[in-house]
Amino acid sequence: MVRSPDSPESVPPPIITLLTDFGAADVFVGSMKGVILGINPHAKIIDLTHDIPAHNIRAGAYLLHSASRHFPPDTIHVAVVDPGVGSERRPLLVTTRSYHFLAPDNGLLSYILASEPKAEVRELTAKQYFLGTVGTTFHGRDLFAPAAAWLSLEEPTDAFGPKIDNPVRFEVHQPQLEEGRLAGEVLHIDRFGNLITNISQTLLREALGSVDLPKVQVRIKKTTVKGLRNFYADAPPKTLAALINSDNLLELFCNQGRADKLTKAEIGDRVEVRMA
Amino acid sequence: MVRSPDSPESVPPPIITLLTDFGAADVFVGSMKGVILGINPHAKIIDLTHDIPAHNIRAGAYLLHSASRHFPPDTIHVAVVDPGVGSERRPLLVTTRSYHFLAPDNGLLSYILASEPKAEVRELTAKQYFLGTVGTTFHGRDLFAPAAAWLSLEEPTDAFGPKIDNPVRFEVHQPQLEEGRLAGEVLHIDRFGNLITNISQTLLREALGSVDLPKVQVRIKKTTVKGLRNFYADAPPKTLAALINSDNLLELFCNQGRADKLTKAEIGDRVEVRMA
Amino acid sequence: MVRSPDSPESVPPPIITLLTDFGAADVFVGSMKGVILGINPHAKIIDLTHDIPAHNIRAGAYLLHSASRHFPPDTIHVAVVDPGVGSERRPLLVTTRSYHFLAPDNGLLSYILASEPKAEVRELTAKQYFLGTVGTTFHGRDLFAPAAAWLSLEEPTDAFGPKIDNPVRFEVHQPQLEEGRLAGEVLHIDRFGNLITNISQTLLREALGSVDLPKVQVRIKKTTVKGLRNFYADAPPKTLAALINSDNLLELFCNQGRADKLTKAEIGDRVEVRMA
Repeated sequence: MVRSPDSPESVPPPIITLLTDFGAADVFVGSMKGVILGINPHAKIIDLTHDIPAHNIRAGAYLLHSASRHFPPDTIHVAVVDPGVGSERRPLLVTTRSYHFLAPDNGLLSYILASEPKAEVRELTAKQYFLGTVGTTFHGRDLFAPAAAWLSLEEPTDAFGPKIDNPVRFEVHQPQLEEGRLAGEVLHIDRFGNLITNISQTLLREALGSVDLPKVQVRIKKTTVKGLRNFYADAPPKTLAALINSDNLLELFCNQGRADKLTKAEIGDRVEVRMA
Repeated sequence: MVRSPDSPESVPPPIITLLTDFGAADVFVGSMKGVILGINPHAKIIDLTHDIPAHNIRAGAYLLHSASRHFPPDTIHVAVVDPGVGSERRPLLVTTRSYHFLAPDNGLLSYILASEPKAEVRELTAKQYFLGTVGTTFHGRDLFAPAAAWLSLEEPTDAFGPKIDNPVRFEVHQPQLEEGRLAGEVLHIDRFGNLITNISQTLLREALGSVDLPKVQVRIKKTTVKGLRNFYADAPPKTLAALINSDNLLELFCNQGRADKLTKAEIGDRVEVRMA
Repeated sequence: MVRSPDSPESVPPPIITLLTDFGAADVFVGSMKGVILGINPHAKIIDLTHDIPAHNIRAGAYLLHSASRHFPPDTIHVAVVDPGVGSERRPLLVTTRSYHFLAPDNGLLSYILASEPKAEVRELTAKQYFLGTVGTTFHGRDLFAPAAAWLSLEEPTDAFGPKIDNPVRFEVHQPQLEEGRLAGEVLHIDRFGNLITNISQTLLREALGSVDLPKVQVRIKKTTVKGLRNFYADAPPKTLAALINSDNLLELFCNQGRADKLTKAEIGDRVEVRMA
């Protein structure tokens, strides 16, 4: 078998990822890809997801933070969940230690900015990097896509617009220690109905001492789960259970079922942890 | 940061786009991609959408026209919405000033042909560009995908089949001026519930004189919208409003809601515009 | 027009396909792609489907077998439908005459193994090809994706783990000849509601003699279809009909309707064929 060698002279293609609430049934995303390839035909375009619930900035912010960090350095992440498109809300270019992010200034980068306090934040103003005519309803195609494509051609970030220091951010809630209980919340509900919380294993250890799995008690709504499991199939079927997931976060699940239906929990619901 | 330079010697990969009604839950699309890469492993395959409603040729025709024009010259667009697969309906190769289109001869290219009257239209007959065995139910994989891949290897268009002059086309409705009102129709309803019409800003100007935004009145079903907005968030929440969108088309929308649900409008419904 | 020549010196990029039950609304798949590109930025990643019904190993097995065989030799297929993730179930690397497959050892490769009796089956054990920390809930990202990426860099298969001879396989049902009738079953229901059976044209010929299309009778549930059609539009609208599809399999369909709704058939339902 002969495969493509990662030979010294073969420069890896630049990666541009896309995360939007545009769905798959329209051609919004396809149009953005066309614009990108018209500027940089060598760009490797990767979809993170386009099924963010329409206009749900918090959901988009969480999933962007969750997926973007698995990409190689210099990846350009474009995120568009943009109910204020066309208004005075600014378009942003944020450069962290590893990545570039292009997004509307509406809180979509809140988790990124919270974990990267020294990120360089610019307002995208340089019209030479936009399409000739920028309309008022589709900045994903007319502004963010072309700017990302030009950035992938190594245009310097300072050519894209001036630094700003007041990007819009929503408050990222941190779990709180209250009378021996660590109180957090449901961050995300995934496709399998699992409830992902904002309580990390690290935080559990710091707050409650060494985590003795069988003694951990997790309370959500009116249900208390006793003990943590090692993996999904480790729990009895059809009952609520909890584990530390592969992102080091406390997660509630239901083996052969759906934790969201079992608990009727929603994003933002309170989750409490204590030691028995 | 070192990025991939668009160096003179690096030839851009050929782009093949796919638009179908095959959905994402099956592997029809994946199979087409496998066939393409078996013939031209360097092809860059881009999905426009695969969620055209099953067998809905008009919806496919609109979205193909809308998305395809954002791609760089020489892009090869493959479109398959094909209820007549296996019958006598012909497979087509249409070459416009900028692009190639491969599609069944059933009207799917109506908008393309309407806007490109000098396009070269050929019947795809050259079996050497098809898979060895072409079945009767999946020409996307057995015929259109391999023909597109061979075309991306610079095979000349005249090798694919003879020119024809009678491709199947449905009538593309143009808005009509009737007693001072411009009467058009709903072309498409997007994922956000927005109603996109076939009335362009250019046509509005020509038909009704200079467009004075506050004086424009748009009527759909039994509702009249007074004045055009500049962008979505410019309208009061939960009410029907209108604007000129980024494709220069009149669009009805509902800020923080869905215009399709509010109006119960469907594709083809009449939309009238006049000046107050 | 200048297109990318398939020049002798341009080595084709390695292809990695992904088939999962992760859905499109989460970023599981995006995260896997990030991990792959971090190891081999030249990999060409192709989605087969991510909409396998959650935890449905049989559905995934069928679609993987159906799509994978259309790819060029040396393609690396990654399949993750993995309810037992984190348990003792083994991760596999299976190498056939044409492809590599990486998947959990839970039956997902049953059709592949049935059609490739001499395939080399290995347990994936070499931790140097996994992410630094492998959690217990997301082996798609932490184990299968990086192993596939390293394999695409031409690491030899024997470096990935020892050969084993007892992979988990479910029984692949073969149609049976019973008193002049060939009895098979519904293998898959596609997006159009078509019922794909496990009865091939070859088998029909062998079992029932030369296949005289008008004389073939197909029975499913309480309905009998008389005669086979040549293509979908060849059947009267809104009635149940049958044909040999492009995969050489007997398929029940409904022109301008859905055979699944008409028959209320489900995967696994019995289908009988005889000659009138």
